[in-house]
Amino acid sequence: MNIAIDLMGGDFAPENVILGIKDFLEHKQFHGKVTAIGTESAIYHARQELREYENIMHWVVAPDVIEMHEHPTKALKSKPHSSINAGFTLLATSQTDAFISAGNTGAMMVGALYSIKSIPGVTRPAIGAYIPQEDGTLSLLIDVGLNADCKPENLVQFAILGSLYSQHILNIDNPRVALLNIGEEEGKGNILCQTAYPLLKECNRILFTGNAEGRDLLKNKADVYVCEGFTGNVMLKFAESFYDIFKSHQIKDEYLNRFNFEMYGGVPVLGVNKPVIIGHGISGATAFNNMLQIAERMIQNNFIQTVTDAFV
Amino acid sequence: MNIAIDLMGGDFAPENVILGIKDFLEHKQFHGKVTAIGTESAIYHARQELREYENIMHWVVAPDVIEMHEHPTKALKSKPHSSINAGFTLLATSQTDAFISAGNTGAMMVGALYSIKSIPGVTRPAIGAYIPQEDGTLSLLIDVGLNADCKPENLVQFAILGSLYSQHILNIDNPRVALLNIGEEEGKGNILCQTAYPLLKECNRILFTGNAEGRDLLKNKADVYVCEGFTGNVMLKFAESFYDIFKSHQIKDEYLNRFNFEMYGGVPVLGVNKPVIIGHGISGATAFNNMLQIAERMIQNNFIQTVTDAFV
Repeated sequence: MNIAIDLMGGDFAPENVILGIKDFLEHKQFHGKVTAIGTESAIYHARQELREYENIMHWVVAPDVIEMHEHPTKALKSKPHSSINAGFTLLATSQTDAFISAGNTGAMMVGALYSIKSIPGVTRPAIGAYIPQEDGTLSLLIDVGLNADCKPENLVQFAILGSLYSQHILNIDNPRVALLNIGEEEGKGNILCQTAYPLLKECNRILFTGNAEGRDLLKNKADVYVCEGFTGNVMLKFAESFYDIFKSHQIKDEYLNRFNFEMYGGVPVLGVNKPVIIGHGISGATAFNNMLQIAERMIQNNFIQTVTDAFV
Repeated sequence: MNIAIDLMGGDFAPENVILGIKDFLEHKQFHGKVTAIGTESAIYHARQELREYENIMHWVVAPDVIEMHEHPTKALKSKPHSSINAGFTLLATSQTDAFISAGNTGAMMVGALYSIKSIPGVTRPAIGAYIPQEDGTLSLLIDVGLNADCKPENLVQFAILGSLYSQHILNIDNPRVALLNIGEEEGKGNILCQTAYPLLKECNRILFTGNAEGRDLLKNKADVYVCEGFTGNVMLKFAESFYDIFKSHQIKDEYLNRFNFEMYGGVPVLGVNKPVIIGHGISGATAFNNMLQIAERMIQNNFIQTVTDAFV
């Protein structure tokens, strides 16, 4: 297997990316290749740091960098030689098997959607994010930003995608799926939820357990919480902002510390034809190491094939 | 003025309601009347506790109680002699000037909408909730549950209602209004936000400052954050659940302690013809005291007239 990673992605690139690759290669038996994409100087620097892994590393020079604040589609067009464009080209042409970047999130989303394409049958790919549950488990919230407006059928597909990821990557047997809603009983909520509920109940590819309210999201009421990307994105960013507060207020608590979203690495784009993982701008070495591990697991478990089979 | 309060509302009724009334009357010069509504035994008990305020208190016997789990419309119909029904009847017939209850939230919403009616020009009343900002200020999130599906024009009205409340009840001059969204720039977000943004920008009755993301909600980016009731309700309940965690994990932090939503009393129903305040089920004495103070301020400042004038 060959995992591509963007050396230029994230606020502390390329240093943290390099440290993450090092952590990853140091601590586990990795039988594949890692393709690092970046500017000449970033690659020069990375080769120094990773010289003991020369036989594992591949290097791809991409002279341009898409900055964090740039407009996604404009930047992808105007900078064809950026590391993000290069990463998607390698992936689309099967020269690599996964792509990881903590760069411009919008560009990563657009790239995933347009370079990689959806798995046949998947109308709308989605992004899942980890939500630490109070009892120590980890659940998935899907979608957290790819689809601001959704149809009920989209939510059912998110439920299937999230369920498969939960089962095959997070190793949860029979993952419970709940619909994020503003009431407990069937029939509650906005029109989208009212219409999606019966479809989720009927769907035999998931274990649907009903509605979950905002207050249930940390209570392990489900392994997969489904919602449209608007609410999911607002919730995720709100949860992330809490961690900043915990940190600045020097709150020391094992559970609250798990709101450090860096611990989980990036978020997977689900429903596209290849493993794509989007990292947070502030990703540190741990985050990159985790993203590499997730990519490895997705390739090892043949996750894309599993999703493809489910949507035939 | 005459403020009606439901003795039967909340998980610790009538004790906490009585204690709240006592706190309120003990600590301030109150020149009006308080009408307490409840079963005979609750009133008997309250009269004992509040005997020194006999000249201020009015008592209204309502033999029935709408329980927390009951279906709102069904309960209001099948229990015409409930304290909530009695409260709205008193208010609708101008025998009282405000109504406070921490009882069945749904029944309070339905009662407010159908007994009290909207202020002319207000298409959809909304509920505002206080969100403690990290810098010590207090902002309002509106709507938090009355309107699961909204049109762009509704969001503009919520902005005006929230802005007026912020100015006249929370004493904030020129309150800044932001649209809760999933991106910073105009044009971002779901169709609702994309369409609402230019309407908010054009509206000369508010000071619109643009989009706020989930991560901005505690950062005092605005005095009023506007959203449809679905996202607002999910966010509020999520924030409330954090406080439960802080408490059970014995986190001691002045700011995080402000997520104790009880501190703020209840949430006002804005856009209806009379002051209606809905308390949280777990409301304690402090919450009831605060709700009485808010009701007093709303009556004193002639808040309903202010809103009526704004929507002429």
